[in-house]
Amino acid sequence: MKTIINPPYTDWAEYCERPSFPAEDLEEKVAAVLEEVRLEGDKALKKLTLAFDKVEVENIKVSAMEIEKAGSEVSDDLKEAIAVAAGNIRIFHSAQQVKEPSVETMTGIKCWRKSVAIEKVGLYIPGGSAPLFSTVLMLGIPAMIAGCGKIVLCTPPDKNGNINPAVLYTASFLGINEIYKVGGAQAVAALAFGTKTVPKVDKIFGPGNQYVTKAKELVQKNGIAIDLPAGPSEVLVIADSTADADFVASDLLSQAEHGPDSQVVLVSDSVELVEKVKIALNEQLSVLPRASVAEKALENSFSVVLNSITECIDFSNLYAPEHLILAIEKAEEFADQIQNAGSVFLGNYSCESAGDYASGTNHTLPTNGYARNYSGVSLDSFVKKITFQNISKSGLQKIGRSIEVMAEAEQLLAHKNAVSIRLKKIQDEK
Amino acid sequence: MKTIINPPYTDWAEYCERPSFPAEDLEEKVAAVLEEVRLEGDKALKKLTLAFDKVEVENIKVSAMEIEKAGSEVSDDLKEAIAVAAGNIRIFHSAQQVKEPSVETMTGIKCWRKSVAIEKVGLYIPGGSAPLFSTVLMLGIPAMIAGCGKIVLCTPPDKNGNINPAVLYTASFLGINEIYKVGGAQAVAALAFGTKTVPKVDKIFGPGNQYVTKAKELVQKNGIAIDLPAGPSEVLVIADSTADADFVASDLLSQAEHGPDSQVVLVSDSVELVEKVKIALNEQLSVLPRASVAEKALENSFSVVLNSITECIDFSNLYAPEHLILAIEKAEEFADQIQNAGSVFLGNYSCESAGDYASGTNHTLPTNGYARNYSGVSLDSFVKKITFQNISKSGLQKIGRSIEVMAEAEQLLAHKNAVSIRLKKIQDEK
Repeated sequence: MKTIINPPYTDWAEYCERPSFPAEDLEEKVAAVLEEVRLEGDKALKKLTLAFDKVEVENIKVSAMEIEKAGSEVSDDLKEAIAVAAGNIRIFHSAQQVKEPSVETMTGIKCWRKSVAIEKVGLYIPGGSAPLFSTVLMLGIPAMIAGCGKIVLCTPPDKNGNINPAVLYTASFLGINEIYKVGGAQAVAALAFGTKTVPKVDKIFGPGNQYVTKAKELVQKNGIAIDLPAGPSEVLVIADSTADADFVASDLLSQAEHGPDSQVVLVSDSVELVEKVKIALNEQLSVLPRASVAEKALENSFSVVLNSITECIDFSNLYAPEHLILAIEKAEEFADQIQNAGSVFLGNYSCESAGDYASGTNHTLPTNGYARNYSGVSLDSFVKKITFQNISKSGLQKIGRSIEVMAEAEQLLAHKNAVSIRLKKIQDEK
Repeated sequence: MKTIINPPYTDWAEYCERPSFPAEDLEEKVAAVLEEVRLEGDKALKKLTLAFDKVEVENIKVSAMEIEKAGSEVSDDLKEAIAVAAGNIRIFHSAQQVKEPSVETMTGIKCWRKSVAIEKVGLYIPGGSAPLFSTVLMLGIPAMIAGCGKIVLCTPPDKNGNINPAVLYTASFLGINEIYKVGGAQAVAALAFGTKTVPKVDKIFGPGNQYVTKAKELVQKNGIAIDLPAGPSEVLVIADSTADADFVASDLLSQAEHGPDSQVVLVSDSVELVEKVKIALNEQLSVLPRASVAEKALENSFSVVLNSITECIDFSNLYAPEHLILAIEKAEEFADQIQNAGSVFLGNYSCESAGDYASGTNHTLPTNGYARNYSGVSLDSFVKKITFQNISKSGLQKIGRSIEVMAEAEQLLAHKNAVSIRLKKIQDEK
């Protein structure tokens, strides 16, 4: 991890660019998968699962018996931990059910908004090396609170055609029992177009590799919404001389172990702290099972030394990190200066993995600089807000003239007439 | 406008498909414009404005003098109407500033969300036949309330190189004085990539023709967010026998005059009402200046007669209209059955044009069935919600074990270690 000391401001933007490793012909390959599933449905899903996941799947839908069996395979310790995390996530996301007031913008003109659940949502849970049951919590809980009518989950089977028991248990624990053994771009296609087995949904959530991400991007052209444009996970830590170098190193590594394309950035006003962190990184790295992954991620990573914490925050706002840790004195006092970040962790004991699993905040967050213009997943992601208005005769009499004048100026005379015809009838009734 | 009487439920989905008239080679043409602007900047903007808007523009940025002059060209009547509309829009969108509570999910674990304005936003205002100054209000007011640091507006010049005075006046009335004379896909490109004159923004808002819409879709790959995927405007009116056929016809026409690709749908439990509306449509159409546009839109439109108002609402929920008018008895009692719609107008005097201009609700709404999974533009569209957490030592002691167990089960040992290393230090301090 290279260190840059006091780079000139004009160079900052360049450091804030994310490394990029696009697969060759990604879009063509994914488009072909989408088309195959659209045309061939379940047959294509089985064929593609055999090709990519190396397993022949008889029943795409997970059976009630498989779900029950999973429950017996998960340890009580893990069940207890999942329950604790679920409780906190439920508390935090329930607090997002804030009702807006109905307003009377003028006497007789009542306007309000109402949150209505998106009817059908699809949750994608990656398989691969780590069974991400925590993502089931992060997507499933707000979907349940929102009241989505249909919540379905897709996740790839392992080489024996099974789904990780922790994933099945967590889904079932939340009341999600419609689970399909399909992964990759083909899962996104199934959710977008529907097959005989897998239902078409209105919005697709969840992380995934480049193929999944590209598939989510492409199906938006077919009227499907997605949670977020996604990229590799990332963390930026701002640390001052009061930070604990061991803690900082552990936070950087917990991001770096996600994948070789993850990026971790350390920003500090103290060269000494940066040096201490580098030593701690080497110590901790040596005992990590995923050390080779983390090492590769560290190669794309860097630390920056700047003149003050305010400058460090300026740099972070330009970078717009998915996760931002403020390991600095009086961290909370700097919270108001944060302009662009997905989720912010304040102080030495707010480690990122708390938010990844159990503190209550969501871990599905904007990456790749999207924290400038996107929020992470929340209750909002599972609803749409419909506006309503109820205008009385006297309300229309009050506002009618303004509408007529504006419609006429926009040369939309039928818009004007919709008011005039009503005002005339009100007049005639008198 | 054809009438369908009691279609079987299995046919409903087909009626809910929108007509589609894609321009040939749309994506290729737009991609070429984007690339040209990305490479050539202002030079490309001037060249493309000459090619498409038939005018040579010296200064892309509108001068202070032009803005001042516009003020003197707008009638006092229109200024008054704009002020009334702005007041109502401000009231409604300010009511969306609802603060969520900070929650302590467990003792020592404090989590909250904070709305932070998107720093730089670009508002696109179409030119063409009608000068849509109302859209300046609908996008500019929530942007100002949100506190966006930079609000820029792009709109195409007319053949003399001028911007419509009502557009300039409205922008300036709101305090938006950074206005550029550029339209079409080239305006979207300028906002997405930045040029020497036009600044790069984080999110692009506003309606437009197919070229603008496609450009907005494409620049999302470059890290730019957009307000909504867009399609032609549409209205669905549910009317029972108590509805006023003249009012219903005027509402259908005020949507139909938007463009030949607009769609209007009448759904009713009364054949008589539908027949009366058709007569009223013909009467009102004959005196409309934009009759030929509205006639073409009516050719793509239809009415459906169903058995009950509940069935009518079911149909509407499947159609997911941008605008929904409930011209029925006790309309407000049916509001809770609405699942999919952009904006809903209740009763005989809540005409759509009220919401288009002045009642206070936003007129930038999901079309083309996107009301299933998208909200219209609101204050939310101009902010991102950043999550924060502050965990104390004792908070981490309470939740630490759960995180360790979950991280271990997901085989993410560095995540676990970030907690373990802290718990150990707390232990050692004792």
